[in-house]
Amino acid sequence: MLVPEGYLFSAVEVGIKYRKRPDLGLIYSESPATWAGVFTRNDFKAAPVLIGKERLRTRETARAILVNSGCANACTGREGLVDAERLLSSLAEILGVSPGEILPASTGVIGTRLPVERMKAHFEALVSGLSPDKAPLVARAMMTTDTFPKVVSRSIPGTKASILGLAKGAGMIAPNMATMLAFVLTDAGLPATELRRGLPEAVAVSFNRITVDGDTSTNDTVYLLANSRAGELPQESWPLFWETLTEVCRELAYLIVKDGEGATKIVRIRVEGAESPEAAERLARAVADSPLVKTAFFGEDPNWGRILVALGKLGLGLEPEGVEVFINEVPLVSRGRGLPEEAAHREMTRPEFTVRIKLSQGSASAEIMTCDLSYEYVKINAEYRT
Amino acid sequence: MLVPEGYLFSAVEVGIKYRKRPDLGLIYSESPATWAGVFTRNDFKAAPVLIGKERLRTRETARAILVNSGCANACTGREGLVDAERLLSSLAEILGVSPGEILPASTGVIGTRLPVERMKAHFEALVSGLSPDKAPLVARAMMTTDTFPKVVSRSIPGTKASILGLAKGAGMIAPNMATMLAFVLTDAGLPATELRRGLPEAVAVSFNRITVDGDTSTNDTVYLLANSRAGELPQESWPLFWETLTEVCRELAYLIVKDGEGATKIVRIRVEGAESPEAAERLARAVADSPLVKTAFFGEDPNWGRILVALGKLGLGLEPEGVEVFINEVPLVSRGRGLPEEAAHREMTRPEFTVRIKLSQGSASAEIMTCDLSYEYVKINAEYRT
Repeated sequence: MLVPEGYLFSAVEVGIKYRKRPDLGLIYSESPATWAGVFTRNDFKAAPVLIGKERLRTRETARAILVNSGCANACTGREGLVDAERLLSSLAEILGVSPGEILPASTGVIGTRLPVERMKAHFEALVSGLSPDKAPLVARAMMTTDTFPKVVSRSIPGTKASILGLAKGAGMIAPNMATMLAFVLTDAGLPATELRRGLPEAVAVSFNRITVDGDTSTNDTVYLLANSRAGELPQESWPLFWETLTEVCRELAYLIVKDGEGATKIVRIRVEGAESPEAAERLARAVADSPLVKTAFFGEDPNWGRILVALGKLGLGLEPEGVEVFINEVPLVSRGRGLPEEAAHREMTRPEFTVRIKLSQGSASAEIMTCDLSYEYVKINAEYRT
Repeated sequence: MLVPEGYLFSAVEVGIKYRKRPDLGLIYSESPATWAGVFTRNDFKAAPVLIGKERLRTRETARAILVNSGCANACTGREGLVDAERLLSSLAEILGVSPGEILPASTGVIGTRLPVERMKAHFEALVSGLSPDKAPLVARAMMTTDTFPKVVSRSIPGTKASILGLAKGAGMIAPNMATMLAFVLTDAGLPATELRRGLPEAVAVSFNRITVDGDTSTNDTVYLLANSRAGELPQESWPLFWETLTEVCRELAYLIVKDGEGATKIVRIRVEGAESPEAAERLARAVADSPLVKTAFFGEDPNWGRILVALGKLGLGLEPEGVEVFINEVPLVSRGRGLPEEAAHREMTRPEFTVRIKLSQGSASAEIMTCDLSYEYVKINAEYRT
């Protein structure tokens, strides 16, 4: 794992909800970092999202990210905002920075208040534990129903700079980043305006292209920090920076689907030959979110009828004769008609496969990554709180 | 069970897919009946739907409905159309009617051809078995993953006429009638134009207000026949007719949700105070189709956070402070904030309950009936074909 220069990490166990694992994490940049953020579009934005959005309007640089699991601080009204601000002020004092330089993020149960005093009591230990090698521990402190921490790093080719990404998320994923947090750190230097221009684009083709259950949460947040410890990045290298960053985001998104609640399969739904990119994406999502298709994936059943039903329900005027479906390279539907399914079934026994849908309406395409729907999904979500 | 005058029923076991139960049914009207039909909006319409729609364009009266389970005759191309037409011609000859007077309906696996010769070999027995008391047998012959036949009847107050409805459907239900068949028969007499005006309205507030898994199938069909055996209905009684018919459709829709694949709970999602009827319906559907909400229902968990997430994800500009949620009469969320959950949990232990969501955006309301998402749903749908 490459860790970009000038970032320190720490995590402690407060016991907000979970026991015997860290649930409060801190990322600290030794010098001010330009930053960007992308947030959930859900009407009910959690307190940390409201604060993050406000910081985005008023601040070009940040010094730290404070994250907790076990409590989303969502639907907590004015009190939730006050709770978060109190935490940030208290931490800012210990870190010797301004509260406005700390970006908050929370994930967990909706509608419960943060145990502010209990959290504050751990701040000294949190700060004194800061070190460059604890990024995986912070990734662990972000976990809720996740079964493994998600950390990805890449060097930016031709530079000394690198990018490190941490993420969490296993359910409520889609369509616009659900109970999903991702923090991407680089020691490259770029202006805040450029970070804020590019991050939504990178998110659109990575985190926003995955779906676990079609729900979008109150807390989804992606933060990107660039502290320039490896020097300002010359403008001609920006495209390469975004390419590398998008790779990191895609890899994190892949890990999130891989850890999808109860998932046993990762499935890429690729639609080609659609009328427009929007139509391609809607069709891919319709297949990726269909419970009937997802349970068929779990059963390794090449039930192409359900795929066609999902495509057809949008009423986009598809012609049966113009539809081809492949599982990986194996044809399953030709001109709207089913082919022998043995070989396709064998492809579906793999842990990952691609459903490629070729239409004849145009030349637009889109890909959505999804997972299957298993007994375990029901178990996790029926029992999550009670 | 009231059976309207002049209708005969029969069903036989062909073994199309299922064994030891009838899978081919016939409804016969002793005199020509005016009729109406409402069909799936899925792009991939099954052969019987294409034929039914064509009949609707060209014929005002019908004499019979032929229905089979086990094979949807969907995605079967031109051959599927020819198969269905051959069946109808052969049956018409035995019944002594025109093929254009028989309405077809199929349900079952997509992409397989009907065993035409085997089915034809049973037509003599099918016709000779016709009797007024076999409506439940036809309802049984329509079943796929259904666990019980669905039959509802009502008399039309102040008249000698009655209405009988048969339906099937347990999965792929929503948003515009999925693998769902319903046949509604009356001995009242009404002109075809009136039947065709009113049926879509009745369907909109009954079958189109239920959801099991958000998918819409290739085969959804509602047929309404009126054979006037109890006399022409005077125009002033038409509103009463539609009221009674809508009740029959609502009751059938209720039975379909009750038999939702793996369902253990029936839940009515009622949204009030929305900006428009469309917004109210979209919001109610967003809650009714959320896998996270549906698994919480299964777990009897008053997880109001998930309900708010589902409402908020549409981005309709809801304000947290303007949201109230009740489980039956028990308040669960007030001004966007959670209340103690004990009493709400107790309501959720019942087999049926209502989630009432009060917004403050306007005065429009909508109700969608849904069910929970259980282990059994996954089991049924992972194993349906294989």
